[in-house]
Amino acid sequence: MILCDIGNTHLHFYNGSRVWKNSPNALDTNKLEGDLYYISVSPKNEELLIKAYHPCYNIASLLHLETTYEGLGVDRKAACLGLGLKSGVVIDAGSAISIDVMDHGVHVGGVLLPGFGAYQQAYKSISKVLNHPINVRIPLDILPQNTAQALSFGALKSVLLVLTEIIGDKKAYFTGGDGKFLATFFPQAIYNELLVFEGMQHAIAQKLESLKA
Amino acid sequence: MILCDIGNTHLHFYNGSRVWKNSPNALDTNKLEGDLYYISVSPKNEELLIKAYHPCYNIASLLHLETTYEGLGVDRKAACLGLGLKSGVVIDAGSAISIDVMDHGVHVGGVLLPGFGAYQQAYKSISKVLNHPINVRIPLDILPQNTAQALSFGALKSVLLVLTEIIGDKKAYFTGGDGKFLATFFPQAIYNELLVFEGMQHAIAQKLESLKA
Repeated sequence: MILCDIGNTHLHFYNGSRVWKNSPNALDTNKLEGDLYYISVSPKNEELLIKAYHPCYNIASLLHLETTYEGLGVDRKAACLGLGLKSGVVIDAGSAISIDVMDHGVHVGGVLLPGFGAYQQAYKSISKVLNHPINVRIPLDILPQNTAQALSFGALKSVLLVLTEIIGDKKAYFTGGDGKFLATFFPQAIYNELLVFEGMQHAIAQKLESLKA
Repeated sequence: MILCDIGNTHLHFYNGSRVWKNSPNALDTNKLEGDLYYISVSPKNEELLIKAYHPCYNIASLLHLETTYEGLGVDRKAACLGLGLKSGVVIDAGSAISIDVMDHGVHVGGVLLPGFGAYQQAYKSISKVLNHPINVRIPLDILPQNTAQALSFGALKSVLLVLTEIIGDKKAYFTGGDGKFLATFFPQAIYNELLVFEGMQHAIAQKLESLKA
Protein backbone atom coordinates (compact mmCIF):
# COMPACT_ATOMS: atom_id res chain seq x y z
CA MET A 1 0.00 0.00 0.00
CA ILE A 2 1.26 3.43 -0.95
CA LEU A 3 -0.03 6.70 0.51
CA CYS A 4 0.25 9.93 -1.45
CA ASP A 5 -0.26 13.56 -0.41
CA ILE A 6 -0.78 15.60 -3.58
CA GLY A 7 0.21 19.21 -2.99
CA ASN A 8 0.45 22.26 -5.20
CA THR A 9 4.16 21.91 -5.93
CA HIS A 10 5.00 18.29 -5.02
CA LEU A 11 3.50 14.87 -4.54
CA HIS A 12 4.71 13.14 -1.38
CA PHE A 13 4.65 9.36 -1.21
CA TYR A 14 4.92 6.99 1.74
CA ASN A 15 5.26 3.24 1.52
CA GLY A 16 5.08 2.51 5.24
CA SER A 17 8.80 2.90 5.77
CA ARG A 18 10.09 5.62 3.49
CA VAL A 19 8.87 9.06 2.33
CA TRP A 20 9.82 10.55 -1.03
CA LYS A 21 8.60 13.32 -3.26
CA ASN A 22 8.12 13.91 -6.98
CA SER A 23 7.48 17.02 -9.01
CA PRO A 24 4.10 16.74 -10.77
CA ASN A 25 5.74 16.74 -14.17
CA ALA A 26 8.43 14.23 -13.25
CA LEU A 27 6.38 11.43 -11.72
CA ASP A 28 8.43 8.27 -11.24
CA THR A 29 6.03 5.33 -11.04
CA ASN A 30 8.79 2.72 -10.70
CA LYS A 31 8.64 2.86 -6.91
CA LEU A 32 4.85 2.52 -6.83
CA GLU A 33 3.19 -0.85 -6.37
CA GLY A 34 -0.19 -2.13 -5.22
CA ASP A 35 -3.08 0.11 -4.20
CA LEU A 36 -2.33 3.81 -3.86
CA TYR A 37 -4.46 5.90 -1.49
CA TYR A 38 -4.21 9.63 -1.85
CA ILE A 39 -5.49 13.04 -0.81
CA SER A 40 -5.11 16.11 -3.03
CA VAL A 41 -5.35 19.89 -2.90
CA SER A 42 -4.47 20.17 -6.60
CA PRO A 43 -6.95 18.79 -9.17
CA LYS A 44 -4.29 19.32 -11.87
CA ASN A 45 -1.64 17.27 -10.08
CA GLU A 46 -4.24 14.69 -9.08
CA GLU A 47 -5.04 14.15 -12.74
CA LEU A 48 -1.36 13.69 -13.56
CA LEU A 49 -1.07 10.96 -10.92
CA ILE A 50 -4.24 9.17 -12.05
CA LYS A 51 -2.96 9.13 -15.61
CA ALA A 52 0.45 7.83 -14.55
CA TYR A 53 -0.56 5.07 -12.13
CA HIS A 54 -3.46 2.89 -11.07
CA PRO A 55 -5.18 1.73 -8.98
CA CYS A 56 -5.45 5.10 -7.17
CA TYR A 57 -8.12 5.89 -4.57
CA ASN A 58 -8.95 9.36 -3.25
CA ILE A 59 -9.67 8.90 0.46
CA ALA A 60 -10.73 12.50 1.21
CA SER A 61 -14.23 11.28 2.16
CA LEU A 62 -12.76 9.09 4.91
CA LEU A 63 -11.23 12.05 6.76
CA HIS A 64 -13.58 13.18 9.49
CA LEU A 65 -12.41 16.06 11.65
CA GLU A 66 -14.64 17.88 14.11
CA THR A 67 -14.45 21.60 13.30
CA THR A 68 -16.57 24.67 12.61
CA TYR A 69 -13.96 25.85 10.07
CA GLU A 70 -15.38 25.92 6.55
CA GLY A 71 -13.34 24.59 3.66
CA LEU A 72 -10.39 23.19 5.60
CA GLY A 73 -7.89 21.79 3.08
CA VAL A 74 -7.76 18.00 3.08
CA ASP A 75 -4.01 18.01 3.77
CA ARG A 76 -4.51 20.18 6.85
CA LYS A 77 -7.32 17.86 7.93
CA ALA A 78 -5.04 14.84 7.58
CA ALA A 79 -2.22 16.52 9.52
CA CYS A 80 -4.64 17.40 12.33
CA LEU A 81 -5.99 13.84 12.40
CA GLY A 82 -2.37 12.72 12.71
CA LEU A 83 -2.48 14.04 16.28
CA GLY A 84 -5.20 11.59 17.30
CA LEU A 85 -6.73 12.93 20.52
CA LYS A 86 -3.68 14.95 21.53
CA SER A 87 -3.93 18.73 21.88
CA GLY A 88 -1.54 21.20 20.31
CA VAL A 89 -0.76 23.30 17.29
CA VAL A 90 -0.22 21.63 13.91
CA ILE A 91 2.10 23.51 11.54
CA ASP A 92 2.47 22.31 7.96
CA ALA A 93 5.18 24.45 6.40
CA GLY A 94 5.22 23.97 2.65
CA SER A 95 4.08 26.21 -0.23
CA ALA A 96 1.80 27.77 2.37
CA ILE A 97 2.29 27.61 6.12
CA SER A 98 -0.87 26.38 7.82
CA ILE A 99 -1.23 26.73 11.58
CA ASP A 100 -4.11 24.76 13.09
CA VAL A 101 -5.09 24.57 16.73
CA MET A 102 -6.28 21.19 17.99
CA ASP A 103 -7.96 20.59 21.34
CA HIS A 104 -8.40 16.90 22.19
CA GLY A 105 -9.23 15.85 18.64
CA VAL A 106 -11.31 18.96 17.89
CA HIS A 107 -10.07 21.56 15.40
CA VAL A 108 -10.51 25.02 16.93
CA GLY A 109 -9.43 27.25 14.03
CA GLY A 110 -6.47 28.00 11.84
CA VAL A 111 -4.27 30.60 10.20
CA LEU A 112 -2.49 30.68 6.85
CA LEU A 113 0.81 32.35 6.04
CA PRO A 114 2.72 32.34 2.77
CA GLY A 115 5.50 29.76 2.62
CA PHE A 116 8.99 31.18 2.11
CA GLY A 117 8.79 30.63 -1.65
CA ALA A 118 5.52 32.58 -1.71
CA TYR A 119 7.12 35.41 0.30
CA GLN A 120 9.66 35.65 -2.50
CA GLN A 121 6.80 35.82 -5.03
CA ALA A 122 5.17 38.56 -2.96
CA TYR A 123 8.29 40.73 -2.93
CA LYS A 124 8.92 40.02 -6.62
CA SER A 125 5.35 41.10 -7.44
CA ILE A 126 6.18 44.56 -6.05
CA SER A 127 9.41 45.23 -7.93
CA LYS A 128 12.18 43.28 -9.60
CA VAL A 129 14.70 44.90 -7.25
CA LEU A 130 12.94 42.97 -4.48
CA ASN A 131 13.41 39.62 -6.20
CA HIS A 132 15.79 37.76 -3.88
CA PRO A 133 15.58 34.21 -2.56
CA ILE A 134 14.59 34.09 1.11
CA ASN A 135 17.56 33.13 3.29
CA VAL A 136 16.00 31.52 6.36
CA ARG A 137 19.41 31.46 8.10
CA ILE A 138 19.36 35.25 8.38
CA PRO A 139 20.40 36.35 11.87
CA LEU A 140 17.49 37.91 13.74
CA ASP A 141 19.47 39.73 16.42
CA ILE A 142 20.82 42.47 14.13
CA LEU A 143 18.87 44.86 11.91
CA PRO A 144 19.32 44.15 8.18
CA GLN A 145 21.86 46.25 6.25
CA ASN A 146 20.80 45.58 2.67
CA THR A 147 17.73 44.65 0.62
CA ALA A 148 18.33 40.88 0.49
CA GLN A 149 18.71 40.79 4.29
CA ALA A 150 15.70 43.07 4.83
CA LEU A 151 13.43 40.75 2.81
CA SER A 152 14.65 37.54 4.44
CA PHE A 153 14.43 39.08 7.92
CA GLY A 154 10.88 40.26 7.23
CA ALA A 155 9.75 36.85 5.99
CA LEU A 156 11.37 34.75 8.72
CA LYS A 157 10.55 37.14 11.55
CA SER A 158 6.89 37.46 10.58
CA VAL A 159 6.46 33.68 10.37
CA LEU A 160 8.21 33.07 13.70
CA LEU A 161 6.27 35.78 15.54
CA VAL A 162 2.89 34.48 14.35
CA LEU A 163 3.92 30.95 15.30
CA THR A 164 5.13 32.12 18.72
CA GLU A 165 1.86 33.92 19.40
CA ILE A 166 -0.41 31.05 18.33
CA ILE A 167 1.65 28.27 19.87
CA GLY A 168 2.02 30.03 23.23
CA ASP A 169 2.75 27.26 25.76
CA LYS A 170 0.98 24.59 23.74
CA LYS A 171 2.71 21.61 22.14
CA ALA A 172 3.68 22.22 18.52
CA TYR A 173 3.72 19.54 15.83
CA PHE A 174 5.62 20.55 12.72
CA THR A 175 5.58 18.88 9.32
CA GLY A 176 6.25 19.89 5.71
CA GLY A 177 9.38 20.96 3.85
CA ASP A 178 10.31 23.85 6.15
CA GLY A 179 8.84 22.23 9.27
CA LYS A 180 12.10 20.68 10.46
CA PHE A 181 13.87 24.02 10.33
CA LEU A 182 11.05 26.02 11.93
CA ALA A 183 10.69 23.46 14.73
CA THR A 184 14.22 24.31 15.90
CA PHE A 185 12.96 27.69 17.17
CA PHE A 186 10.50 26.13 19.63
CA PRO A 187 11.66 24.03 22.58
CA GLN A 188 8.27 22.28 22.85
CA ALA A 189 8.19 21.42 19.13
CA ILE A 190 8.05 17.96 17.63
CA TYR A 191 8.91 17.50 13.97
CA ASN A 192 7.03 14.65 12.35
CA GLU A 193 7.57 14.17 8.63
CA LEU A 194 4.76 11.57 8.67
CA LEU A 195 1.99 13.63 10.27
CA VAL A 196 -0.21 13.83 7.16
CA PHE A 197 0.35 10.15 6.39
CA GLU A 198 -0.42 9.16 9.97
CA GLY A 199 -3.69 11.05 9.67
CA MET A 200 -4.47 9.18 6.46
CA GLN A 201 -3.59 5.84 8.08
CA HIS A 202 -5.78 6.73 11.04
CA ALA A 203 -8.73 7.46 8.71
CA ILE A 204 -8.22 4.23 6.76
CA ALA A 205 -8.01 2.21 9.99
CA GLN A 206 -11.23 3.79 11.26
CA LYS A 207 -13.00 2.93 8.01
CA LEU A 208 -11.82 -0.68 8.19
CA GLU A 209 -12.94 -0.84 11.82
CA SER A 210 -16.40 0.47 10.91
CA LEU A 211 -16.70 -2.14 8.13
CA LYS A 212 -15.93 -4.92 10.62
CA ALA A 213 -18.56 -3.67 13.05
CA MET B 1 6.84 73.92 -7.21
CA ILE B 2 5.49 70.38 -7.30
CA LEU B 3 7.05 67.41 -5.51
CA CYS B 4 6.48 63.89 -6.80
CA ASP B 5 7.22 60.50 -5.24
CA ILE B 6 7.21 57.91 -8.04
CA GLY B 7 6.40 54.49 -6.66
CA ASN B 8 5.84 51.10 -8.24
CA THR B 9 2.05 51.38 -8.39
CA HIS B 10 1.32 55.10 -7.99
CA LEU B 11 2.82 58.54 -8.39
CA HIS B 12 2.14 60.80 -5.42
CA PHE B 13 2.18 64.56 -5.93
CA TYR B 14 2.38 67.41 -3.43
CA ASN B 15 1.98 71.07 -4.27
CA GLY B 16 2.75 72.42 -0.80
CA SER B 17 -0.83 72.20 0.40
CA ARG B 18 -2.44 69.15 -1.12
CA VAL B 19 -1.40 65.53 -1.85
CA TRP B 20 -2.89 63.50 -4.68
CA LYS B 21 -2.00 60.34 -6.55
CA ASN B 22 -2.16 59.11 -10.14
CA SER B 23 -1.82 55.69 -11.68
CA PRO B 24 1.22 55.61 -14.00
CA ASN B 25 -0.98 55.04 -17.03
CA ALA B 26 -3.51 57.71 -16.10
CA LEU B 27 -1.27 60.71 -15.47
CA ASP B 28 -3.25 63.93 -15.20
CA THR B 29 -0.89 66.82 -15.93
CA ASN B 30 -3.60 69.49 -15.59
CA LYS B 31 -2.80 70.02 -11.92
CA LEU B 32 0.95 70.30 -12.53
CA GLU B 33 2.60 73.68 -12.96
CA GLY B 34 6.10 75.08 -12.63
CA ASP B 35 9.15 73.01 -11.74
CA LEU B 36 8.53 69.46 -10.65
CA TYR B 37 11.06 67.77 -8.34
CA TYR B 38 10.82 64.03 -7.99
CA ILE B 39 12.30 60.84 -6.60
CA SER B 40 11.59 57.45 -8.15
CA VAL B 41 11.90 53.75 -7.41
CA SER B 42 10.41 52.85 -10.79
CA PRO B 43 12.40 53.70 -13.96
CA LYS B 44 9.33 52.74 -16.02
CA ASN B 45 6.99 55.13 -14.21
CA GLU B 46 9.69 57.80 -14.13
CA GLU B 47 9.84 57.67 -17.92
CA LEU B 48 6.07 58.04 -18.16
CA LEU B 49 6.20 61.19 -16.04
CA ILE B 50 9.10 62.70 -17.98
CA LYS B 51 7.22 62.12 -21.23
CA ALA B 52 4.04 63.66 -19.84
CA TYR B 53 5.41 66.78 -18.16
CA HIS B 54 8.41 69.06 -18.00
CA PRO B 55 10.45 70.56 -16.46
CA CYS B 56 11.08 67.55 -14.16
CA TYR B 57 14.14 67.16 -11.95
CA ASN B 58 15.25 63.98 -10.21
CA ILE B 59 16.58 65.07 -6.79
CA ALA B 60 17.81 61.65 -5.62
CA SER B 61 21.39 62.96 -5.51
CA LEU B 62 20.38 65.62 -2.96
CA LEU B 63 19.22 63.05 -0.40
CA HIS B 64 22.02 62.38 2.06
CA LEU B 65 21.27 59.95 4.86
CA GLU B 66 23.92 58.56 7.18
CA THR B 67 23.64 54.76 7.07
CA THR B 68 25.66 51.58 6.58
CA TYR B 69 22.67 50.02 4.78
CA GLU B 70 23.47 49.29 1.13
CA GLY B 71 20.94 50.14 -1.57
CA LEU B 72 18.35 51.91 0.58
CA GLY B 73 15.45 52.88 -1.68
CA VAL B 74 15.27 56.62 -2.35
CA ASP B 75 11.69 56.77 -1.03
CA ARG B 76 12.74 55.17 2.26
CA LYS B 77 15.66 57.60 2.42
CA ALA B 78 13.30 60.55 1.94
CA ALA B 79 10.87 59.29 4.59
CA CYS B 80 13.74 58.87 7.07
CA LEU B 81 15.04 62.36 6.27
CA GLY B 82 11.51 63.58 6.99
CA LEU B 83 12.23 62.91 10.67
CA GLY B 84 15.05 65.47 10.77
CA LEU B 85 17.12 64.68 13.86
CA LYS B 86 14.31 62.94 15.72
CA SER B 87 14.67 59.27 16.68
CA GLY B 88 12.08 56.60 16.01
CA VAL B 89 10.83 54.01 13.56
CA VAL B 90 9.71 55.07 10.08
CA ILE B 91 7.05 52.84 8.51
CA ASP B 92 6.07 53.39 4.89
CA ALA B 93 3.15 51.05 4.21
CA GLY B 94 2.46 50.86 0.50
CA SER B 95 3.14 48.14 -2.10
CA ALA B 96 5.85 47.04 0.30
CA ILE B 97 6.00 47.86 4.00
CA SER B 98 9.39 49.31 4.91
CA ILE B 99 10.39 49.62 8.55
CA ASP B 100 13.45 51.78 9.18
CA VAL B 101 15.02 52.58 12.51
CA MET B 102 16.38 56.12 12.94
CA ASP B 103 18.59 57.26 15.79
CA HIS B 104 19.10 61.05 15.91
CA GLY B 105 19.31 61.43 12.14
CA VAL B 106 21.28 58.21 11.60
CA HIS B 107 19.68 55.24 9.84
CA VAL B 108 20.41 52.09 11.88
CA GLY B 109 18.88 49.40 9.63
CA GLY B 110 15.60 48.33 8.15
CA VAL B 111 13.20 45.53 7.37
CA LEU B 112 10.88 44.89 4.43
CA LEU B 113 7.52 43.16 4.51
CA PRO B 114 5.09 42.62 1.65
CA GLY B 115 2.26 45.18 1.54
CA PHE B 116 -1.24 43.73 1.88
CA GLY B 117 -1.68 43.62 -1.90
CA ALA B 118 1.57 41.65 -2.18
CA TYR B 119 0.37 39.23 0.54
CA GLN B 120 -2.60 38.55 -1.69
CA GLN B 121 -0.23 37.89 -4.61
CA ALA B 122 1.78 35.53 -2.41
CA TYR B 123 -1.26 33.45 -1.46
CA LYS B 124 -2.52 33.51 -5.05
CA SER B 125 0.87 32.25 -6.27
CA ILE B 126 0.34 29.10 -4.17
CA SER B 127 -3.15 28.16 -5.33
CA LYS B 128 -6.18 29.83 -6.81
CA VAL B 129 -8.27 28.68 -3.82
CA LEU B 130 -6.07 31.05 -1.76
CA ASN B 131 -6.88 34.06 -3.94
CA HIS B 132 -8.87 36.32 -1.61
CA PRO B 133 -8.48 40.05 -0.98
CA ILE B 134 -6.88 40.78 2.38
CA ASN B 135 -9.45 42.16 4.82
CA VAL B 136 -7.41 44.26 7.25
CA ARG B 137 -10.48 44.66 9.50
CA ILE B 138 -10.33 40.98 10.42
CA PRO B 139 -10.75 40.53 14.20
CA LEU B 140 -7.54 39.28 15.77
CA ASP B 141 -9.02 37.98 19.01
CA ILE B 142 -10.67 34.89 17.52
CA LEU B 143 -9.09 32.13 15.46
CA PRO B 144 -10.19 32.19 11.79
CA GLN B 145 -12.98 29.83 10.73
CA ASN B 146 -12.55 29.83 6.95
CA THR B 147 -9.89 30.35 4.28
CA ALA B 148 -10.56 34.04 3.61
CA GLN B 149 -10.31 34.81 7.34
CA ALA B 150 -7.21 32.60 7.74
CA LEU B 151 -5.36 34.51 4.99
CA SER B 152 -6.31 37.98 6.22
CA PHE B 153 -5.50 37.07 9.83
CA GLY B 154 -2.10 35.72 8.75
CA ALA B 155 -1.24 38.84 6.76
CA LEU B 156 -2.41 41.42 9.32
CA LYS B 157 -1.07 39.56 12.36
CA SER B 158 2.35 39.01 10.83
CA VAL B 159 2.70 42.68 9.89
CA LEU B 160 1.54 43.90 13.31
CA LEU B 161 3.80 41.53 15.25
CA VAL B 162 6.90 42.53 13.29
CA LEU B 163 6.01 46.22 13.76
CA THR B 164 5.41 45.67 17.50
CA GLU B 165 8.78 43.97 17.92
CA ILE B 166 10.79 46.55 15.99
CA ILE B 167 8.97 49.61 17.36
CA GLY B 168 9.21 48.47 20.99
CA ASP B 169 8.85 51.63 23.06
CA LYS B 170 10.22 53.89 20.34
CA LYS B 171 8.20 56.57 18.55
CA ALA B 172 6.65 55.35 15.31
CA TYR B 173 6.12 57.53 12.24
CA PHE B 174 3.73 56.01 9.72
CA THR B 175 3.18 57.06 6.14
CA GLY B 176 1.91 55.45 2.92
CA GLY B 177 -1.46 54.10 1.84
CA ASP B 178 -1.95 51.68 4.74
CA GLY B 179 0.00 53.80 7.22
CA LYS B 180 -3.02 55.57 8.65
CA PHE B 181 -4.75 52.31 9.43
CA LEU B 182 -1.66 50.57 10.84
CA ALA B 183 -0.88 53.57 13.04
CA THR B 184 -4.15 53.00 14.93
CA PHE B 185 -2.64 49.87 16.54
CA PHE B 186 0.17 51.81 18.23
CA PRO B 187 -0.49 54.41 20.92
CA GLN B 188 2.87 56.12 20.31
CA ALA B 189 2.30 56.32 16.54
CA ILE B 190 2.13 59.46 14.45
CA TYR B 191 0.65 59.29 10.96
CA ASN B 192 2.20 61.77 8.56
CA GLU B 193 1.05 61.60 4.97
CA LEU B 194 3.78 64.12 4.07
CA LEU B 195 6.80 62.33 5.53
CA VAL B 196 8.46 61.54 2.17
CA PHE B 197 7.72 65.05 0.87
CA GLU B 198 9.07 66.65 4.04
CA GLY B 199 12.27 64.65 3.53
CA MET B 200 12.47 65.93 -0.04
CA GLN B 201 11.81 69.53 1.08
CA HIS B 202 14.49 69.15 3.74
CA ALA B 203 17.02 67.96 1.10
CA ILE B 204 16.13 70.80 -1.26
CA ALA B 205 16.43 73.36 1.57
CA GLN B 206 19.85 71.98 2.52
CA LYS B 207 21.02 72.23 -1.07
CA LEU B 208 19.83 75.84 -1.34
CA GLU B 209 21.55 76.62 1.95
CA SER B 210 24.84 75.14 0.71
CA LEU B 211 24.61 77.21 -2.49
CA LYS B 212 24.24 80.38 -0.44
CA ALA B 213 27.27 79.55 1.70
